[in-house]
Amino acid sequence: MKIGILQLNPVVGDIKGNAEKIRKAALKAQTRGADLCLTPEMALTGYPPRDLLFYDGFVNTTRAMAEKLALDLKDGPPLLLGSIEKNRSGQGKPVFNCALWCEGGEIRQIFRKTLLPTYDVFDEARYFEPAPGDNPKENILEFQGRTIGVTICEDAWNDKDFWDTRSYSRDPLDEAAAHNPDLILNLSASPIFLGKQKLREDMLGAVAKKYSVPLIYANQTGGNDDLVFDGRSCGFAPDGSLVGRAPGFTEEVLVIDLDDLQGSPIAEDDFSKASETWQTLVLGTRDYVRKSSFSKALVGLSGGIDSAVTAVVAVEALGAENVLCVLMPSPYSSQGSIDDSLKLADNLGIKTLTLPIQPIMDQFDKALAEPFKGLEIDTTEENIQSRIRGNLLMALSNKSGAMLLTTGNKSELAVGYCTIYGDMSGGFAVISDVDKTGVFDVARWYNENIKPAIPENIITKPPSAELRPDQKDQDSLPPYDILDGILGLHIEQHKSMQQIIEAGFEEKIVEKVLKLVRFAEFKRRQAAPGIKLTPRSFGTGWRMPLACKREL
Amino acid sequence: MKIGILQLNPVVGDIKGNAEKIRKAALKAQTRGADLCLTPEMALTGYPPRDLLFYDGFVNTTRAMAEKLALDLKDGPPLLLGSIEKNRSGQGKPVFNCALWCEGGEIRQIFRKTLLPTYDVFDEARYFEPAPGDNPKENILEFQGRTIGVTICEDAWNDKDFWDTRSYSRDPLDEAAAHNPDLILNLSASPIFLGKQKLREDMLGAVAKKYSVPLIYANQTGGNDDLVFDGRSCGFAPDGSLVGRAPGFTEEVLVIDLDDLQGSPIAEDDFSKASETWQTLVLGTRDYVRKSSFSKALVGLSGGIDSAVTAVVAVEALGAENVLCVLMPSPYSSQGSIDDSLKLADNLGIKTLTLPIQPIMDQFDKALAEPFKGLEIDTTEENIQSRIRGNLLMALSNKSGAMLLTTGNKSELAVGYCTIYGDMSGGFAVISDVDKTGVFDVARWYNENIKPAIPENIITKPPSAELRPDQKDQDSLPPYDILDGILGLHIEQHKSMQQIIEAGFEEKIVEKVLKLVRFAEFKRRQAAPGIKLTPRSFGTGWRMPLACKREL
Repeated sequence: MKIGILQLNPVVGDIKGNAEKIRKAALKAQTRGADLCLTPEMALTGYPPRDLLFYDGFVNTTRAMAEKLALDLKDGPPLLLGSIEKNRSGQGKPVFNCALWCEGGEIRQIFRKTLLPTYDVFDEARYFEPAPGDNPKENILEFQGRTIGVTICEDAWNDKDFWDTRSYSRDPLDEAAAHNPDLILNLSASPIFLGKQKLREDMLGAVAKKYSVPLIYANQTGGNDDLVFDGRSCGFAPDGSLVGRAPGFTEEVLVIDLDDLQGSPIAEDDFSKASETWQTLVLGTRDYVRKSSFSKALVGLSGGIDSAVTAVVAVEALGAENVLCVLMPSPYSSQGSIDDSLKLADNLGIKTLTLPIQPIMDQFDKALAEPFKGLEIDTTEENIQSRIRGNLLMALSNKSGAMLLTTGNKSELAVGYCTIYGDMSGGFAVISDVDKTGVFDVARWYNENIKPAIPENIITKPPSAELRPDQKDQDSLPPYDILDGILGLHIEQHKSMQQIIEAGFEEKIVEKVLKLVRFAEFKRRQAAPGIKLTPRSFGTGWRMPLACKREL
Repeated sequence: MKIGILQLNPVVGDIKGNAEKIRKAALKAQTRGADLCLTPEMALTGYPPRDLLFYDGFVNTTRAMAEKLALDLKDGPPLLLGSIEKNRSGQGKPVFNCALWCEGGEIRQIFRKTLLPTYDVFDEARYFEPAPGDNPKENILEFQGRTIGVTICEDAWNDKDFWDTRSYSRDPLDEAAAHNPDLILNLSASPIFLGKQKLREDMLGAVAKKYSVPLIYANQTGGNDDLVFDGRSCGFAPDGSLVGRAPGFTEEVLVIDLDDLQGSPIAEDDFSKASETWQTLVLGTRDYVRKSSFSKALVGLSGGIDSAVTAVVAVEALGAENVLCVLMPSPYSSQGSIDDSLKLADNLGIKTLTLPIQPIMDQFDKALAEPFKGLEIDTTEENIQSRIRGNLLMALSNKSGAMLLTTGNKSELAVGYCTIYGDMSGGFAVISDVDKTGVFDVARWYNENIKPAIPENIITKPPSAELRPDQKDQDSLPPYDILDGILGLHIEQHKSMQQIIEAGFEEKIVEKVLKLVRFAEFKRRQAAPGIKLTPRSFGTGWRMPLACKREL
């Protein structure tokens, strides 16, 4: 028996378009001999549709489209379709997250997801009622004389032997295994964080081996808002070995033959941090811009490394002809920064526009001369410059229909070293989950592996916001290696102050950094969405109170 | 037996400060004869602490403070303390939401919440493990020969007779009732939406009557970010009648005598929409500003009704001496708007500052002359003005340490009739859950009931953004009564397009409005938090995908 994995990139809410994508991929798998196909989790709606799930119109249209798709594929291969179903029990949440078994032109069986991730960026308990658990065979499909266990994403992530601590009391994989299945399938929409594929393959291989059963895993690909799904669908033999892998970050139909498990391709993948980062940023940016019905982007180039990396990602994602870079020098901008920016743009073959801001700054100074009389110059004046630039960039965006990309990195977003409504302006925050150290790594990796387009000077000079004479980031912040070390523990690992100090960081610095993180919460609440790359990014996975005391 | 309800306004995360508040209130209840006290839900941490719950430091400090409080109250009345407990089972979520029974200087029993609201603004399944349900007496307290059922907020909201559809399979109230209790207690942190207290009293009265048992309900008061808790703690006799009610929107210790149920005060409350709106806005604004460690606020006055209502709320919340209003006229500002603004400020006794923006506009025009050559004037130029004003207001805020309040209403936030980084700039969006129709109602009610400070002309003139000559809101939008009708169905009731048309609205208008709502999603994602007043506000209760198709 041959299984076709339809690794697809759906657009959230585009039910018609997604159905067509699935239909074509299923027929493609059929030409390659597939006896059965499976899509990623909720491929028909795209994942995650969030509060669209509360609309009857959305749920009903999805059901109607699933029926039509089943009918359209009457002569195609039977299909396990990731979708949703209205909960008609009169109790609990409005929908089920489910796999619909489409065979012979109709929907013949429904498999409901049991384990609903409700942590980090996931809110599934908000929307979905879990599988009721009242039928021991609720996730068993009988097909062509084979017994197949059907699981959906998290359902496979609760093995008591693999994990030190478990999140749930039920284990749908174990429940399926009790029926001695010939095969276990998993429909997933699993977003990337750096290193996740290694974890997935270790875990899935371990459970295939534990139950001595082939296991086939179909993952979504593509960017949906802050989440990038990296595909890399794969299959495992009953001994736990990897027997097939679709390439990452792209659509693919991968066929795995259960009767010839060694015959499937295993896409190469180096799993390196820099390469994963690059591919995630590019796909995330491309999909966000295009799925928002934009085609062009704007980037403000400061001469620093953050805007340089944002620009090279934009060029790779959208094409050089679709990226416009804008220089907005002030009296505090160095000639070096201007030259570096122009050189970068030239290397990339993109257009630039230069709009000096001093005349506007002067008018703000005049307007505020009276209320500011006798008061010291402080960060207020720096913020004004940044907000003038934000206003110019947004004006260009509004007039041209190009999306403004923001250029801030995770370190500065963490400590608030950025101006709300200034450099934080924009529709999408490309590198907001890459810390400063990581931005340098990506820049170097890009120059070595893609194109040596980022001028060396941008990488080697000390970072500066250039909002006052001779300003350097390190005047206000600890060295970036120390800062990023503290931030990693505090944000990604939820470590408290005392634990961070015990990890070897200086108390005074830890105290200062955590205070900055706390004070910047209001800025982050109004930040543009950005691409999740780590186990904890700001945005939907970081939900902090604002008007509070916070002694962690 | 006398029960002391400690209706308190905790600061989220201020564990020490909250403990002191609870201690004092318990002693006050003792002087009034209380045999037993109860706080609102999670009074020790404040509700909701959100992701602070993921920090060990936070959870451990809370536990230590609960122990200290129990000890401090050794000679005080026994206390049911709303708090959290680490989940040490090795499975599931990190904490329990619980009531700690503090008696004789120590914590003697722990009651865990069973039903965890995970809808709208609530994310409890993200944080809390439910009560295990392995002990039939898990929510029964035996004290002074009486059997007391202890429930926490949602635990009381799943009665199968009261509700048409139920959210959960368990019913902790029913479980407690099985033990023939002499009393049922409920510790709550229940935020307001308009009309909610009526629902609470109907529902709680119905269950008291059903089980023929006295029921005492303690609710939190105060504003925590977007949520305002209205207090109005209350008690019910076994016949379902209301026998005590604490006043709304303020702290109070209310003692109810089980042996003289008719002897307790019932605070007057008119439950009117305008009065509830007003009190919610004032308390929400006061608490957000002060709990953020600010004392002063800035409001940009346009001469329109939205900024007028925002200003009067700010004055009531913070005092006239703490509110500065800023006028920033452009060539498109009418003299009437300037005069109306100055008159309003004069009526309120607040200072104003006038900063004309034309000189800055001229410099933006110059800077953009080249890139904009040959292009039509459109909303870009309007947005530039709005963003100049945002920059000036933020500069004044940065320099003075006064929080900028944004003035946008729910109708314009819904359809995107507002400028991101322009008039959307600010730390807190006071009226962002009041639709335009509601803003007029509040203005009239304020003039009649509080102070006739809002000039009649502000209420009667047709709304205009004054960003181009002779502009009126109604040039771009349907009449506000129709717009607000459609928005109410679509946003608050999750009605799909077809359902709204069936409700009697014109198809073309519905289509246009829903399209505007969809296109404005990216602006709302970056909006300041605002006060929830309706069953569905934008913000934490509205989680929509951005880069998507959305046909509802």
